[in-house]
Amino acid sequence: MIEEQLTLSLDDTAADPLYRQIYLQLRHMILNGDLLPGTKIPPSRKLAAQNGIGRITVTQAYNQLEAEGFVTSRPGSGTFVAEKLTASPLPAPQELFSPTLSTWGRRIQNASKPPRREKPRLDIDFGFGRSFPHIFPYDIWRRLLARYLSTDDVMLSRYGSPLGFYPLREALAGYLVHQRGVKCTPEQVVIVSGAQQALDILARLLFNEGDKVVVESPGYNHAYRLFQAHGAHLYPLAVDEYGLPVADLPQGKKVRAAFVTPTHQFPRGGSLRLDRRLRLLEWARTQDALILEDDYDSELRYDGRPLSALQGLDESGHVVYLGTFSKVLFPALRLGYVVLPESLLAPFSQTLALVDRGAPTLTQAAVADFIAEGYFERHLRCLRTAYAERRETLVKALDAALGDKVSFSRIPAGLHIMIHLHPHCDEEDVIQKAASAGVGVYPGAPYYLQEPAPPSILLGFSGLNEEQIQEGVSRLAAVIPFPTTRQF
Amino acid sequence: MIEEQLTLSLDDTAADPLYRQIYLQLRHMILNGDLLPGTKIPPSRKLAAQNGIGRITVTQAYNQLEAEGFVTSRPGSGTFVAEKLTASPLPAPQELFSPTLSTWGRRIQNASKPPRREKPRLDIDFGFGRSFPHIFPYDIWRRLLARYLSTDDVMLSRYGSPLGFYPLREALAGYLVHQRGVKCTPEQVVIVSGAQQALDILARLLFNEGDKVVVESPGYNHAYRLFQAHGAHLYPLAVDEYGLPVADLPQGKKVRAAFVTPTHQFPRGGSLRLDRRLRLLEWARTQDALILEDDYDSELRYDGRPLSALQGLDESGHVVYLGTFSKVLFPALRLGYVVLPESLLAPFSQTLALVDRGAPTLTQAAVADFIAEGYFERHLRCLRTAYAERRETLVKALDAALGDKVSFSRIPAGLHIMIHLHPHCDEEDVIQKAASAGVGVYPGAPYYLQEPAPPSILLGFSGLNEEQIQEGVSRLAAVIPFPTTRQF
Repeated sequence: MIEEQLTLSLDDTAADPLYRQIYLQLRHMILNGDLLPGTKIPPSRKLAAQNGIGRITVTQAYNQLEAEGFVTSRPGSGTFVAEKLTASPLPAPQELFSPTLSTWGRRIQNASKPPRREKPRLDIDFGFGRSFPHIFPYDIWRRLLARYLSTDDVMLSRYGSPLGFYPLREALAGYLVHQRGVKCTPEQVVIVSGAQQALDILARLLFNEGDKVVVESPGYNHAYRLFQAHGAHLYPLAVDEYGLPVADLPQGKKVRAAFVTPTHQFPRGGSLRLDRRLRLLEWARTQDALILEDDYDSELRYDGRPLSALQGLDESGHVVYLGTFSKVLFPALRLGYVVLPESLLAPFSQTLALVDRGAPTLTQAAVADFIAEGYFERHLRCLRTAYAERRETLVKALDAALGDKVSFSRIPAGLHIMIHLHPHCDEEDVIQKAASAGVGVYPGAPYYLQEPAPPSILLGFSGLNEEQIQEGVSRLAAVIPFPTTRQF
Repeated sequence: MIEEQLTLSLDDTAADPLYRQIYLQLRHMILNGDLLPGTKIPPSRKLAAQNGIGRITVTQAYNQLEAEGFVTSRPGSGTFVAEKLTASPLPAPQELFSPTLSTWGRRIQNASKPPRREKPRLDIDFGFGRSFPHIFPYDIWRRLLARYLSTDDVMLSRYGSPLGFYPLREALAGYLVHQRGVKCTPEQVVIVSGAQQALDILARLLFNEGDKVVVESPGYNHAYRLFQAHGAHLYPLAVDEYGLPVADLPQGKKVRAAFVTPTHQFPRGGSLRLDRRLRLLEWARTQDALILEDDYDSELRYDGRPLSALQGLDESGHVVYLGTFSKVLFPALRLGYVVLPESLLAPFSQTLALVDRGAPTLTQAAVADFIAEGYFERHLRCLRTAYAERRETLVKALDAALGDKVSFSRIPAGLHIMIHLHPHCDEEDVIQKAASAGVGVYPGAPYYLQEPAPPSILLGFSGLNEEQIQEGVSRLAAVIPFPTTRQF
């Protein structure tokens, strides 16, 4: 068979160069069966002339087709469609393939997805959980990065240690021991791409399907969805202003772990009282359970030093400590860290090495210097000053405008305030009405595991100035009903 | 009870400030039972005088102790050790806790660990798998990063989309469609922190304990260990110079997937022949299996354009395509990408969102510009020129010094050459002797799944200059025994 004339449709204004258009069209004809195996295709000179293009363009296409095995050229006799392709002409499939998913895959598919909210146009957005980027010392950060942005072989061309860049682990261990009351060596500190990665690895190491984990309600729902994806069952305890009610901790139920935020309960506020801390540790010891301590924002305490970590009270290796830079440097940095008890060091690092090659060395090196050279402490002082003012403004505005309509934690810390509404209040209604008034406030319900959740809303203050906070609260106050007493 | 005199041991040259030393020592006495609940501790003025320090230092310590609940102060009567702590004095534990691990945890613990090698002092190191950092255009990279290192709220202060920074997904889709023959939209491209993260998520979605996965031998052992950690069973096929022997693909055995490197087989070299590609796709369709195509170094082809991706031949959604920037930009970047068939988009992105908050937006933005503004293509041309020369030098040196003592793939691609030794050769012996001669070469055995592995060694050429390569090969040749014919 000889195909003397090939009908090509070429367009020299298309994104693909001409040679690639020829290649793609011939390939299509071959795979489709329009050009049968063994067919001789026109010499490049002829195809070029027929299509008014340069011969070199056709040759490029033929070379690619030959390199990929679509055609073979026999010196002296021409170029032919490859023979071997006959065996399996692939008929066009009826429909796209859907692989059977694993148990994990099915759990993920069946998990309730957080509802997508239409983001209305807001004049004042009390969004929360992020720091205020204008405070960050970009000039210093740029300078630190630039140090390592030269031709430093070790920084750029090798995979780093999966446990993290050692000088950063050292700087962190120093910070955690002296500022957070954590007991650890640099070897126990492992760098992760965020607390969520650490939780994912811990969940793999600890949970089989059906294993129980004690969690706070309200609490950090993103971690809860992760635990559930791993097949763990949540055992929620309703927190009060002093944190987890330790008297309600389950006994003898094969609970594998408790996930807690002792320094500053998320999202309610409040911190775990010392007697409860000691009881929680005792519970872990009697139940052979681990405590996962998420110290997500301890740096952001505005009335003196933050409370020491629970981990520092543990003598028996029952506490895993998790921290992050997302709240105090910037979220886009994607760095967190975990302090592991001896028993988990080997399995955690083996898992981490298997699933990830570690966080970017460059960023880790810059953060290490940022801490070691005192910029971190200085930056924290700036953040604390700025946020303390904003929080104070929000508290005063809430007290003035809402008085005893709402209650909230008075502990000066964090990046948001969770306000508890009157039990008969409809939180969705308040949020909708606030949005109509151009004010973004956020529901507390997604963080509760009890049903129905007591109505509450969250107001972040880190991204707003004094005027915005005051105006926002005054508009919010106008849509909150039910005057009542402060205690409910 | 009144404790009039407290014996403190203070050191004003220690890393901890004095107030913290006081805090820690009192805390220790309280937790230890040396200071019983209800005990009155000395007034700050007195303790300061007894220890010859300032009263404000003692007050700081007392304040921290009170904030954390160790002591309470009663106005007018003094400061007392807290009462509530009586309930649970924690006796010192006998030994550290070791939690029971999950099935995953036990698999990880029982997995054979790659042996740690003593790294000898080497004059010439044929290390492989990394690119040559001196070629990277640092000035351009710094400039691109600097664009986003200002106070850009979107870049730094928010968590990015877990699927990746959209402009990077767009730039990649364009690159993959036009340069790699991949069929995809930007929505199918998901940014990961490396191909390993993508494989980990795919393994979660696809494998239950005992599920089978076809793999190449020799092959990418890091992926194999990951699949095994997920409980999957490996079904190895010994590759030849044309890649996977498709005639040996298992039929009717509930194989969930095949992991392949069709463009450039790792680590053997060679590429999957077109007829085998078509048969592999047909196999996937008849077996309801997925093909995981790892296109880890397709950019590094030195004799014209790289072969198109297998993914581009798939009409039915059976191929997942994986790529990485580690080989062509720099490993420390920690960025990879995956092109997903429709069916896996939702479960993959739900899993990714649960386990990771996504790669650093800043880096993604800089890489997106690096591609979109043509620097990537230009950089690849530089890399190809440099590596092609190095490879050519290595090939010539091997031919000259070792002649028919060894065989290897002649396809000009990649960052290393795997040389096959005579079957009676002892690869460990060659490696040891080479090391004694100051030359680092690497064992092929860890990549083989059949036992005993045919002897082979790997030589990376990307980090060495012409002289080093020639000298290295000449020293290596001196330690390789068994002259024989080229075909064995």
